[in-house]
Amino acid sequence: MANSIYRASILQSYSQLLFQPCLSNKHCVPKKTNLLCFASSQLNPARSEVSFCIGTHLIPHPNKVERGGEDAFFVSNFKGGVIAVADGVSGWAEQNVDPSLFSKELMANASSLVGNLEVNYDPQILIRKAHAATCSKGSATAIVAMLERNGTMKVASVGDCGLRVIRKGQIIFSTTPQEHYFDCPYQLSSELVGQTYLDAVVSSVELVEGDTIVMGSDGLFDNVFDGEIVSTLAAHSDVVEAAKALAKLASNHSLDSRV
Amino acid sequence: MANSIYRASILQSYSQLLFQPCLSNKHCVPKKTNLLCFASSQLNPARSEVSFCIGTHLIPHPNKVERGGEDAFFVSNFKGGVIAVADGVSGWAEQNVDPSLFSKELMANASSLVGNLEVNYDPQILIRKAHAATCSKGSATAIVAMLERNGTMKVASVGDCGLRVIRKGQIIFSTTPQEHYFDCPYQLSSELVGQTYLDAVVSSVELVEGDTIVMGSDGLFDNVFDGEIVSTLAAHSDVVEAAKALAKLASNHSLDSRV
Repeated sequence: MANSIYRASILQSYSQLLFQPCLSNKHCVPKKTNLLCFASSQLNPARSEVSFCIGTHLIPHPNKVERGGEDAFFVSNFKGGVIAVADGVSGWAEQNVDPSLFSKELMANASSLVGNLEVNYDPQILIRKAHAATCSKGSATAIVAMLERNGTMKVASVGDCGLRVIRKGQIIFSTTPQEHYFDCPYQLSSELVGQTYLDAVVSSVELVEGDTIVMGSDGLFDNVFDGEIVSTLAAHSDVVEAAKALAKLASNHSLDSRV
Repeated sequence: MANSIYRASILQSYSQLLFQPCLSNKHCVPKKTNLLCFASSQLNPARSEVSFCIGTHLIPHPNKVERGGEDAFFVSNFKGGVIAVADGVSGWAEQNVDPSLFSKELMANASSLVGNLEVNYDPQILIRKAHAATCSKGSATAIVAMLERNGTMKVASVGDCGLRVIRKGQIIFSTTPQEHYFDCPYQLSSELVGQTYLDAVVSSVELVEGDTIVMGSDGLFDNVFDGEIVSTLAAHSDVVEAAKALAKLASNHSLDSRV
């Protein structure tokens, strides 16, 4: 039965996306820059607009390398920028279903729907339409964040993918995972028993220039403490390098047999 | 010097506010009701509107009973409802300044400014204007949440007061404390060295009917695990009783000499 299809392991893969809002002239501002873009945009929204600088890195779980892992993601520069991660539920493999197909299709659908008028730049509606357009068998957790040019980042999440916002060396915003019970996250599914966009947690946060956003599957957040995320970012001014370092840290921790 | 004025103890007092969105007909809906107010309001915002059912309870720290504690709060039924907590920084007592005066004045100002046109129902602007109107010497952490009738709750926070949203027995949204270093939170101050509304973390979350919101000072969140908040709410269907039980739990934990 499909309702028995849930994650078999908390160690999925270690994909994560790492973002920094920067000025709309596309020149990325170093992470430590503390110019308050939000503050000035509040006074005059037209004066300074934000967009993302993006670094991504994905390390599949060692047992899932041949399928490229079960995580999928997409990024878009539509409006202020759109970032999303989905994590295929590995339990489907027991039914000879490739768990990566659903998450990849979900992200492909979302990517193509970003500019859809009915989506209206709303991450919850994007999840609804991307989910409705899936044909693959399977299920996935998913998170979508959409940045408005005034600095508002809207987030919708179903399950245990996550997002952190780091400002001046502190995490100032975190999403909270949803699960039915341990190791069984809320999930968008090909089956009727799964969750829908109506189950998404929908939130938003006002970003300022210099903020760093870390988005990933539970493979990142289950293996790396928040303090380690902060210290890793502090050690890497380049978002691409920071993304790589975080993914490697998660991968290394997951392979540590001492814990 | 004022810049040495920071919290002396993580155990301040145990005030907390507990809220549940309910239908605008003012009949509170039991916590377990899962009618998706947000879902229907998204389809037709005029069809269902939300507002708060409120329970509050404040237990001052035993050493601060004579001043009534250093926490202050206010609630308002303006629009969907406004709730706020401020926590006076106890270090001021060493300079013979009553730490409760600043937090109480801040909340009194905020209460009177809720409907101000310039505030425009924006919690960050409410903090700005309430702070600017203070005359007392002192400093305080503060959090303000404003509920729109369509279910959007906007939150602005400076420091380590906090808020949790509980949905179907899970915490689905949490604020994150800001601090300069351990036991030294960001704080609004009578002195120039403190933080301002520009340092606030500004976020929002889409509520649905049946959600429960717990707001409090660090005296609550430093003493009660999130899991205990969830289990306490599950044991009390009445918000007033639940608020009382949570405050008592925080107080009891703070007096436990075994930890």
